[in-house]
Amino acid sequence: MTPDSAAVLAALRAALGDDAVRTGDAIGARALTDWTRMTPTRPAAVLMPATTEQVARALAICHDAHQPVVPQGGMTGLAGGAIARASDIAMSLERLAGVEEIDTASATMTVRAGTLLETAQQAASEAGFELALDLGARGSCQIGGNLATNAGGNRVIQSGTARDQTLGLEVVLADGTVLSSLNKMVKNNTGYDLKHLFIGSEGTLGVITRAVLKLAPPRRARHTALVALDGYEAAVALLNTMRARFGNDVGAFEIMWPDFFDFGVSLTPGARSPFDARHPMYALIEHAGLDPEDRGVAFSDVLMQALEAGALRDAVIAQSLAETRALWAIREATAEFPSRLEPVNFDVSLPIGAIGRFADACRARFEQCWPGQVSYYFGHIGDSNLHVTVDGRSVPGVPHDVIDRELYALLAPYAGSISAEHGIGVLKRDFLPVSRSAAELATMRAIKQALDPRGILNPGKLLPV
Amino acid sequence: MTPDSAAVLAALRAALGDDAVRTGDAIGARALTDWTRMTPTRPAAVLMPATTEQVARALAICHDAHQPVVPQGGMTGLAGGAIARASDIAMSLERLAGVEEIDTASATMTVRAGTLLETAQQAASEAGFELALDLGARGSCQIGGNLATNAGGNRVIQSGTARDQTLGLEVVLADGTVLSSLNKMVKNNTGYDLKHLFIGSEGTLGVITRAVLKLAPPRRARHTALVALDGYEAAVALLNTMRARFGNDVGAFEIMWPDFFDFGVSLTPGARSPFDARHPMYALIEHAGLDPEDRGVAFSDVLMQALEAGALRDAVIAQSLAETRALWAIREATAEFPSRLEPVNFDVSLPIGAIGRFADACRARFEQCWPGQVSYYFGHIGDSNLHVTVDGRSVPGVPHDVIDRELYALLAPYAGSISAEHGIGVLKRDFLPVSRSAAELATMRAIKQALDPRGILNPGKLLPV
Repeated sequence: MTPDSAAVLAALRAALGDDAVRTGDAIGARALTDWTRMTPTRPAAVLMPATTEQVARALAICHDAHQPVVPQGGMTGLAGGAIARASDIAMSLERLAGVEEIDTASATMTVRAGTLLETAQQAASEAGFELALDLGARGSCQIGGNLATNAGGNRVIQSGTARDQTLGLEVVLADGTVLSSLNKMVKNNTGYDLKHLFIGSEGTLGVITRAVLKLAPPRRARHTALVALDGYEAAVALLNTMRARFGNDVGAFEIMWPDFFDFGVSLTPGARSPFDARHPMYALIEHAGLDPEDRGVAFSDVLMQALEAGALRDAVIAQSLAETRALWAIREATAEFPSRLEPVNFDVSLPIGAIGRFADACRARFEQCWPGQVSYYFGHIGDSNLHVTVDGRSVPGVPHDVIDRELYALLAPYAGSISAEHGIGVLKRDFLPVSRSAAELATMRAIKQALDPRGILNPGKLLPV
Repeated sequence: MTPDSAAVLAALRAALGDDAVRTGDAIGARALTDWTRMTPTRPAAVLMPATTEQVARALAICHDAHQPVVPQGGMTGLAGGAIARASDIAMSLERLAGVEEIDTASATMTVRAGTLLETAQQAASEAGFELALDLGARGSCQIGGNLATNAGGNRVIQSGTARDQTLGLEVVLADGTVLSSLNKMVKNNTGYDLKHLFIGSEGTLGVITRAVLKLAPPRRARHTALVALDGYEAAVALLNTMRARFGNDVGAFEIMWPDFFDFGVSLTPGARSPFDARHPMYALIEHAGLDPEDRGVAFSDVLMQALEAGALRDAVIAQSLAETRALWAIREATAEFPSRLEPVNFDVSLPIGAIGRFADACRARFEQCWPGQVSYYFGHIGDSNLHVTVDGRSVPGVPHDVIDRELYALLAPYAGSISAEHGIGVLKRDFLPVSRSAAELATMRAIKQALDPRGILNPGKLLPV
């Protein structure tokens, strides 16, 4: 904190109330780190504003004092973007919570930033809609954090990322100005669309306080299949076939290379593959449609036609909820990574056509660097997203950033992204130039300077120093 | 032009070639005005760069000389946003044209700014895809202009606006810096998403040179119906019913109040309504699905169930292409406005639930101000978009901006938008504060200042002076 920190804290207590300015042991464990499990750090204080006006007053005080502020949501991030330094003041949005309105005519929800994603999902469901945003952290993460990081999650192939669910946004700027654009309209061409600047900016341009989110009709017809394929190109061709016929009723298209598939199968009860043979590529496909009468006949037909045409090697179509769960259990073996190996995880994106070549090149390079290394490849290819996990035990003594550098060096020629959905935070900050040009970084800095000239919002995050 | 204009033109000729710097009579008529038919104005020069590098060199020269530059596309705008003043240099993108690549695996198209929308649509179609962006000006408008104005058009209910079709963008900044973000990935969380700043900024922040657009599977199953309804609320309820069952296979939902409907019918051959009675509201509905085998049975079933449930009064389902055209002809009577009346057009948006009340209030207010006035109400309600057209002949001597003020005064309490899709340009510039707050306008100005500190890009447009 700055030398006049006591004065700042006194001003904040006067503005927010004593109970909303926590210091020392009164700061809960959650404020100290995120799901990266980086070293916990206790901020100088944690603010807990309950209204937009309190957020504005607190920021105005910190702005006057040149005091850095780190906005915090549910602390479920995977890039260290919400971890405060000891000299920072954290601002938790958890008291600014609740669904303010569901407008059934507009099919929109107006929600406060500190609302849990799961709470918002339930409110949408009770009103007869679906909030398409969904991720594993739904019970802990908050809408504000979802938007600040442009969260991806389980339904991107169908409904896009958090950005695509957002029609309106209320943000408080560094100096305490309230920028309220709680738009509910699909079409609104009245100047710069400011909300997109704040979505995905990881708390460096403003503090999100409220949002208007789109609601969708619920998808009640779900059908699942696991297919075996000749390789990556066959997976892309099948994805395009499914999309041509089912559009965004394709609810999942998860591909798994054989090493990952075998790992997943080994953890299922019985540890038996649903297929008689081993195959070069697997895809778990979900059809999620709107017609509750749909019994999946069209879905099966398209897969059977593909089988007959030689476009796939084998297919298992789930006939019950139990079978559906058994197929998903293979893909969800990722949950066992932390307990079964020492995972070094990557979350990259590339043009869909390049993902197969990149995975091959990556495995070959790793093997060249560290013979005997073990790495797993799987991805949401409809989202252009590839995950790579290296088992740290197979590359003993190799620092993680050395592995990072090898992988990112291969990514650069494809104009790939070092972060498909997790964001930059501090963990990937120094690698940002792999994915963004000098001109892009300079433009980002110009915008940061324009909106936060004193640099008080989440300093040291996202933008390379 | 500035006093050293001769030197600027000489530098531009040296950089682009003599043929790419047109002055005086060598400037074609198209550069002088747009589809608003505002008074044609001849700019000091029209530049015709053929490459991104030429755009960059030209802007660097103009930036050094503090010379204003007005980017021009197909000049089909409806807000005067691309009309240059006599002292401006216009920059036409028409030579920077062509589809550079269609990536079938990514389902993307990389296209130069000067490409006609229709040319891009045809290229997508030949590759087995559909470019969802479509508007009446398709044969004249250019992709760069479509993006600079975030064009809406015919398929917004299904696929969103131009913004929603865009994955990547290349832009040249005011000082000639090339900002190339030709991203093809659905997920890419690597810092601020800069493309959204430029989309819809009407050439005030940068000159768009190339874009990566999403392609969609072609929708080959189209079914059309005209329905009669109890009123606006019944139209919203039916829209929600259709969406719950067909999602974004709902391809059109055009509502018409009786005065507009009667006007439309009066222009069709025979001038006979498809219904026996007059009704309080009409909706033209299209189902546009992916399954070429779909014969429209589900579409008819949903409408028949709604009829039996009393949710609609009557329905006519087109049984042939000729019948489909006949139904659309009623809605497309708007094309006859310029020849049949003196149209004063509005393109507003409001929360969907408020459109009916607003239309009623608007008609009542107009009647109070100008008894006997004639105005027509129709809209794309799925897009939250209402069009109002006043027949200027029925309000003789009333200046258009007086009508503007009356309508916008009613719009403000609904947080409505003065421009759903046409943009701001010069025509609506001074009304922008109706839809955007002082904080929003200040933030827009801060961004303008950060990216174009000399204010050379399209000065006097969009932002109130």
